[in-house]
Amino acid sequence: MQVINLAEKFTRFSAHWHPHIVGELNGQQVKIAKVKGEFIWHQHDAEDEMFIVIKGKLFIDFKEKTVEINEGEMIIVPRGVPHRPHSEEEVHIMLFEPASTINTGETENELTRKNLSKI
Amino acid sequence: MQVINLAEKFTRFSAHWHPHIVGELNGQQVKIAKVKGEFIWHQHDAEDEMFIVIKGKLFIDFKEKTVEINEGEMIIVPRGVPHRPHSEEEVHIMLFEPASTINTGETENELTRKNLSKI
Repeated sequence: MQVINLAEKFTRFSAHWHPHIVGELNGQQVKIAKVKGEFIWHQHDAEDEMFIVIKGKLFIDFKEKTVEINEGEMIIVPRGVPHRPHSEEEVHIMLFEPASTINTGETENELTRKNLSKI
Repeated sequence: MQVINLAEKFTRFSAHWHPHIVGELNGQQVKIAKVKGEFIWHQHDAEDEMFIVIKGKLFIDFKEKTVEINEGEMIIVPRGVPHRPHSEEEVHIMLFEPASTINTGETENELTRKNLSKI
């Protein structure tokens, strides 16, 4: 059992849109990522996904609206809901989702990241 | 889908050691709590439990050591591991755990809180 310092974990990588695993529990994973710019539209058919913004301002487009998520705020995107995260500046986020979740959901492309590292 | 502001959620209650639910996903719950003083020794036989410190300094006693968890830090306590959280000053924490998790684990006493409110 180790205490995990999130700020320190964020110093260990720099690539955008590339989640790293910081913890696992109950079949779920806790991931952190740095994001900047626009991701793709995607959905997760079987997994709800939680985003917590640790630093910066994240936007998520849904079909009917765009939400703004600031530091200290979170959102849960239910399974099956198409969404597109984006940001103007670099944002640090934490994700909580089943271990089976792929970052690009049901869409596989050059942004897809599998076999994530645990840091 | 609503953006959840954690600081705002913390203004909605004041009792210590009484978690409130702020989100649910994949059979898991996201809870927040204010804690101060000493909780009881307990364990969760079937549930891993994650603590994130949002504000303040939390201590958790384990049989072999005591850990200090500061703001921006987290720990995952595996199922079956006895633990006792405590703090000197009020601490704001976020918990991730299965919806089945009871705050006092396998021990039921006057600190046990069931049927938690969603705020």
